[in-house]
Amino acid sequence: MTEEPKRRTRGGGRAGAKTRRGTSVIEQMPWNPPVNIDRPTEPLGPEGVAAIHNGAMRILEEIGIEIYNLEALEIFRKAGCTVNGENVRMDRDMVMEYVAMAPSEFVITPRNPDRAITIGGKNLVFGNVSSPPNYWDMAINRKVPGTREMCRDLLKLTQYFNCIHFAGGYPVEPVDIHASVRHLDVLYDKLTITDKAMHAYSLGKERVEDVMEMVRISGGWTHEEFEASPKMYTNINSTSPLKHDIPMLDGWMRIARRNQGLVVTPFTLAGAMAPVTMAGAVTQSIAEALIAVVLAQIIRPGASVAIGTFTSNVDMKTGAPAFGTPEYMRATQMTGQLCRFYGLPMRSSGVCAANVPDGQAMWETSNSLWAAVQSGTNMVYHAAGWLEGGLIASPEKFIMDCEILQQIQRYMAPEICATGPDEIAFDAIKEVGHGSHFFGIQHTQDRYTTAFYQPFLSDWTNYEGWEVAGGIWTQERAHHMFKEIVGSFEEPPMDVAIREELAGFVARRKSEGGAPTDF
Amino acid sequence: MTEEPKRRTRGGGRAGAKTRRGTSVIEQMPWNPPVNIDRPTEPLGPEGVAAIHNGAMRILEEIGIEIYNLEALEIFRKAGCTVNGENVRMDRDMVMEYVAMAPSEFVITPRNPDRAITIGGKNLVFGNVSSPPNYWDMAINRKVPGTREMCRDLLKLTQYFNCIHFAGGYPVEPVDIHASVRHLDVLYDKLTITDKAMHAYSLGKERVEDVMEMVRISGGWTHEEFEASPKMYTNINSTSPLKHDIPMLDGWMRIARRNQGLVVTPFTLAGAMAPVTMAGAVTQSIAEALIAVVLAQIIRPGASVAIGTFTSNVDMKTGAPAFGTPEYMRATQMTGQLCRFYGLPMRSSGVCAANVPDGQAMWETSNSLWAAVQSGTNMVYHAAGWLEGGLIASPEKFIMDCEILQQIQRYMAPEICATGPDEIAFDAIKEVGHGSHFFGIQHTQDRYTTAFYQPFLSDWTNYEGWEVAGGIWTQERAHHMFKEIVGSFEEPPMDVAIREELAGFVARRKSEGGAPTDF
Repeated sequence: MTEEPKRRTRGGGRAGAKTRRGTSVIEQMPWNPPVNIDRPTEPLGPEGVAAIHNGAMRILEEIGIEIYNLEALEIFRKAGCTVNGENVRMDRDMVMEYVAMAPSEFVITPRNPDRAITIGGKNLVFGNVSSPPNYWDMAINRKVPGTREMCRDLLKLTQYFNCIHFAGGYPVEPVDIHASVRHLDVLYDKLTITDKAMHAYSLGKERVEDVMEMVRISGGWTHEEFEASPKMYTNINSTSPLKHDIPMLDGWMRIARRNQGLVVTPFTLAGAMAPVTMAGAVTQSIAEALIAVVLAQIIRPGASVAIGTFTSNVDMKTGAPAFGTPEYMRATQMTGQLCRFYGLPMRSSGVCAANVPDGQAMWETSNSLWAAVQSGTNMVYHAAGWLEGGLIASPEKFIMDCEILQQIQRYMAPEICATGPDEIAFDAIKEVGHGSHFFGIQHTQDRYTTAFYQPFLSDWTNYEGWEVAGGIWTQERAHHMFKEIVGSFEEPPMDVAIREELAGFVARRKSEGGAPTDF
Repeated sequence: MTEEPKRRTRGGGRAGAKTRRGTSVIEQMPWNPPVNIDRPTEPLGPEGVAAIHNGAMRILEEIGIEIYNLEALEIFRKAGCTVNGENVRMDRDMVMEYVAMAPSEFVITPRNPDRAITIGGKNLVFGNVSSPPNYWDMAINRKVPGTREMCRDLLKLTQYFNCIHFAGGYPVEPVDIHASVRHLDVLYDKLTITDKAMHAYSLGKERVEDVMEMVRISGGWTHEEFEASPKMYTNINSTSPLKHDIPMLDGWMRIARRNQGLVVTPFTLAGAMAPVTMAGAVTQSIAEALIAVVLAQIIRPGASVAIGTFTSNVDMKTGAPAFGTPEYMRATQMTGQLCRFYGLPMRSSGVCAANVPDGQAMWETSNSLWAAVQSGTNMVYHAAGWLEGGLIASPEKFIMDCEILQQIQRYMAPEICATGPDEIAFDAIKEVGHGSHFFGIQHTQDRYTTAFYQPFLSDWTNYEGWEVAGGIWTQERAHHMFKEIVGSFEEPPMDVAIREELAGFVARRKSEGGAPTDF
C-alpha cells in the first residue's frame, strides 16, 4: 500500500489517472482495497463451529425451508431434495456437496476494470449505504423521504471516496420516481456517476434483466463477455424464519444463470425472527443462506456466492432492532468462523441504531466495522452513510464513516509493523541520544510524509486553534465537505456512444412501461 | 457474568450491597471487571518480537538511559550496571534476570475489598481520565481551568459507574487549590467519594508519602498490613528520549519499597520524542520501561510492576500529538506482544485528539479502547472522560465512554457465544417453524430479560420517537445524565473514625505546609 498524504492522487497508473477528477476538495488515500492481515477473532472452538453447523444441517434435514418460487421448487425436486408443497428438505451430504462447488473467492469487474474487486480470501471491500427510504442532512435537519437528487448526491460520494469500493443498492430510495421505472433512472445515474461494481435488486424479472443489460452496455461487453465472469452482483434476503420469497429467488436464479455475483443475507434478529440466543440466530441464518447457495450451485456449479450476516438483537423493551451491539459483534465473528468452515466469502455491514451522526452513531458503527474486520468479512455493505437502523441515509454520516474506513485501510498496511533495522531505528535512537528530539533527523525527514495516517475530517488542532476556526463539530465539518464535494464533482469518463446507448435503453424501456409494480 | 438489565443492582453479594447507593439514575451493569476471552491481535511474528526485544536490549547495553536521581544511580551501580555520570547501561542477561523476578499479575486492594482489582493475566480493568488541566461541559461550552468542584463531580462519576474499576490520577487538575496542599485535598475527596483502587502521583516525596499514609488510614490498615500487598499504585512516565527524572524515580522507589503497585509508561510520540517508525518508537518505549522494572526488582525482588504504552504518532503537518490512530492501534498491539514476551502486565489508554464529545471523539476513543482489548491490555487508563489529547476532562465524554466500556464488558461475557443445545435452539426453531416470530415462545420468555446488552445512554427508539422526546443528541443526553448522577450522588460508606483520622491528617499536613512546590 502506498500512502502519500502530502500529495494529491494525481496519477501513477490507470487507477490513479481515473480518480484524479474531483479529488481536489480533500486529500484522501488512493484506491487500494485492503488485505486483512489480522488473524480473525474466533469466539467459538471447533465444537462450537460443529454445533452451529450441525444445527443448520438439522434445520435443512428435519424442518426444511419454505420456498415460494415454483421454478426453484422444481429445481430442488429434480436435484433430489424432499419437496412437500413449498417445504424443501435435503440431507447434509447433498448440502456439503453443492457448497463445495462454490469458489472461495471471485472477482467482480465493473465498466472501469481498475475498479475490479475480489470477494473472498483476505480481501476487504466497502460499499455505500443501501436502500434507506429516508434522508437526513444537517441543512434539512429532519427526516425526509429520499429523492433522485439526494440519491445522486450520495452516488457522488460513493464515487468520490476511494475507500468506497463498490456501489451497493440505491444509497437512498428515490421515491419521487415511479417504482415501475425507478430502477432505470437510478441505474442510469449509478452507471454514469460511478464506475464501481454495481448491484441489482432482485425484485422482479424486469428489474434484474434491465440492470444486467445496462451493466453489460456500460462495459461495452458482448453477452458472451458479460457472462464470462461477474460484472455485477445481487443481494437477497430470506424471509426469516425459514422462508425465501418469489422475486428474490427469481432474481437469484437469473443472476446465477448469467454467472454474476450472488450474496444471500438472512435478516435474523435474535428474539424476533430468530432465536433469542445468538448461536441459535446464527444457526438459523446459516441454514437460510445455505439453501440459496445450494440452489445457485445446482443451476451453475461454481457460481460465485457469498454468505451475508445480518444477525443482531432487538431491544427487548420495545422490539426495536439494535445494531453494533456486543451481541451483533459476536454473531458477526461466529458467522465468520462458519463461512471459513464452508470455504465461502462473507458479507457483513456497517450499522447503527442512532438517528443522527453523533457519538452514539460512531460507537455503534465503529463496533460493527471492527467486527467486520475481526470476523474476516470480505464485503462490507452499508459501510458509509447509514442511520436509524437503515431507515435514514445521511451524507454527513457517509463522510464520517469514510474516515473510519480509511483508517481501517491504513491499519491494514503491513509497513506500520515492519521491524527491519531501518524500522527498529537503533542508529536514529543513538543519534538523538538523550537530549533532543526526532523531528529534524534524516531518519524522520526520509519518512515523515508517508509515515502516518493523515485524516481528511478529523481535526487534530488543539482546542484554541479549533475554536478560532469556528469551533465546528465533526458533523458540521462533514456537512461543509459534502457540499464542496458534490458542488465540484465531475463524473468519471464514459464513452459517448455507451452513454447514448444507455439513455436509449432507458427511454425504450420506459416507453414499454418499465417493470410491473404488483409483485 | 450476570446481567440484569431489567432490574436495578440492588443486592446479591457484598459487591452488590456496596453498589446500591446512587444507582437509581440509570440501570447499569453490576461491578464485574471483565476477563478478556479473545486471543490477542498480534501483528508481529516471533522475529518481529525478537527484533524489538533485541533493539531494546541494545539500547540498554550500548546507549544507556540517563537517570537523574542520585539514589537510583547508586542502586544501579551497586547492582553491577555500568554508570557513567548519569548514564546507566546494563547487559541483557541482567535485564532479563530482574524482569523474570516480576510477577505476571498482582492484586490492588482498596479500602473496600470488594473493589480489589487484578492487574495481569486475562484481566481487564478501566480507570477514569487522569490529569487534564482543563474542563469542558455542555453547560459551560468552553475550555476552562479545572476546579476542586469539577474534580469532585468527576470523582462522583468514577464511583458511580460500575465499569470504572479504579480511580486514576486527578480526573481534572483542581488549579484552585494551591499545589502544595492539592494532593491532600484531592486525596481526601478521592478517598471519601470513591472506594476504588487509588493512585499516587510520583511528584516529590511528600506527595507520595502523604498519599500512602492516607490510603493506609482509609483501609484501617497497620503499616505492616499496608505493606503486605498493594493497596494503591503509582504511574511514572519517562522523559523520552531515554531519560528518567528525579521526582518520578523518587516516587517509584518509595512505592517499590512499600510493596505497592508500579506502572511505568514512556510517552513516546513517534516522530517527536521517538523514531518516526512505530517499531522504533515501541523499541525505545520498551527500553525506557524495562530500566524502571529492573530498578524496582533490585529494590524489591518480586515488586508488582506493569508496563504502560503511550506510543502514538504526531500530526506531521503541525507536530501535534494524534491519538486513536491506526498507528496507535498497531503500536499498542505490538507492545502487548512484548509484554507477554516479558511476562509483565500491561497498561494502555482510552484516548482521542478531538476537542468536544462528537463523532470524531468516539471513533478515536473506540479505536483506542478496542486496541486495548486486542492488545491484551490489563489496565486501561483514561478509559472515560478524555478530550483534546488529555488536556480536557469532560463529564459528557466520561458518560459516553462508559457506554463503550460497558459494551466491552458485555462483549467479554462467554455466554453470548454459548453453543449448547439450548443456545442452538433447534427445538425453538422447529416450534416457530416458518410462519410466526420468536417473541412469545417460552425459549424467548425464559431469556429475554438477560439475553442482550441494555444501554443506558444509547437511544434505540426510531427517529419519530426520538424527535418527540426532544431530538436530543448523545452529548446532551449525557449532560442531563451527568447532572442527575451528581445531584443524587451518595458517598460510599466510611467509618466515622477513619473519616476523622483522614481529616485530621489533612489538617496537620496543611499546617506543616504540605509539599514543596519547587521540584
